[in-house]
Amino acid sequence: MDFSSRLLENAVYEFSKLPGIGQKTALRLVLHLLKQNEQDVHQFSNTLIKLKNEIRFCKSCHNISDTPVCEICSSLKRDKTLVCVAEDVRDVMAIENTGQYQGVYHVLGGLISPIDGIGPADLFIESLVDRVKEGEITEVILALSATMEGDTTIFYIYKKLKNLPVKVSTIARGISFGGELEYVDEVTLGRSIATRIPYENSLLK
Amino acid sequence: MDFSSRLLENAVYEFSKLPGIGQKTALRLVLHLLKQNEQDVHQFSNTLIKLKNEIRFCKSCHNISDTPVCEICSSLKRDKTLVCVAEDVRDVMAIENTGQYQGVYHVLGGLISPIDGIGPADLFIESLVDRVKEGEITEVILALSATMEGDTTIFYIYKKLKNLPVKVSTIARGISFGGELEYVDEVTLGRSIATRIPYENSLLK
Repeated sequence: MDFSSRLLENAVYEFSKLPGIGQKTALRLVLHLLKQNEQDVHQFSNTLIKLKNEIRFCKSCHNISDTPVCEICSSLKRDKTLVCVAEDVRDVMAIENTGQYQGVYHVLGGLISPIDGIGPADLFIESLVDRVKEGEITEVILALSATMEGDTTIFYIYKKLKNLPVKVSTIARGISFGGELEYVDEVTLGRSIATRIPYENSLLK
Repeated sequence: MDFSSRLLENAVYEFSKLPGIGQKTALRLVLHLLKQNEQDVHQFSNTLIKLKNEIRFCKSCHNISDTPVCEICSSLKRDKTLVCVAEDVRDVMAIENTGQYQGVYHVLGGLISPIDGIGPADLFIESLVDRVKEGEITEVILALSATMEGDTTIFYIYKKLKNLPVKVSTIARGISFGGELEYVDEVTLGRSIATRIPYENSLLK
């Protein structure tokens, strides 16, 4: 694109580095910000700098937190014997939004992905093992994506934990609630038949 | 959404104020920035502050510029007798990218839109009239969107200029090049028949 201003070009370039933002969208966002008053733009920028400078990660579960130990880990209402392993803060938020989970979390910070150069040492797996070794935890729920990377990570963690006195489970996979059978992909449908459960067990207690 | 961090929530809120960015996209962008190193985030923020603080608008055409008079207005290769009236910098860039235009511009900064509270006084229309009155300009091309607001603005400017010794033209409207007739909307097709031109005139010289 042919920009009439170097300052504009720089700002568009910075925005277009963000995921899913192309040059046209970046230009639209920058021109929007340019129309705002000076104070709003400063606030936008300073919020990001403040976030980057002051953000902390929970010492226990590695989730994003403003305090040394996050709200969930320090809550007295949470069941500390149940740990849900999640990829990142987005997945934690998704699970929190279900309102179905009363345990605590352990955020890995990613998934094992050799193609992206991410190995087990880049993730918070050792600290999970250490938490389990402390003895308080009775069950670890592996709530990771049903992808190649998720399955690899699940298998790796399972091997690390299987000799410890802890139950390791994964979240159920199958057809979505409300999903019409004819639109379900073959792999999911096939696996959901193979891993069928007694009807009584499918009812929520 | 249930954020575990106030800093995170603030940053997501700032991003979600941008046009076309919802809360989920905002979270994705913020988490992406959070993964970058501190220097990158500072650069992102400072580029925006610098843009807002240092951006200038061309004294002549009101286009975004780093200098008091923009590159196009100060170029010796440009035909100063031909002025193209555009809504904003995006439209100027779109016209520049065609490579078909060698005149200069006049950026209005918006379109007349009573519903949004934008009247003629909010746009750079008087300064266009002043430029025309200087006498150097022989033709004003109104290159505005084919919308209600665009048409209103065109009509207003036309009335302001019609008693001055200057030719006022609008860009051609009709079916797109490469467009299949059966998919063209009725208004465009109807108008393109009503405003048909002799075949010889449709050939580029």
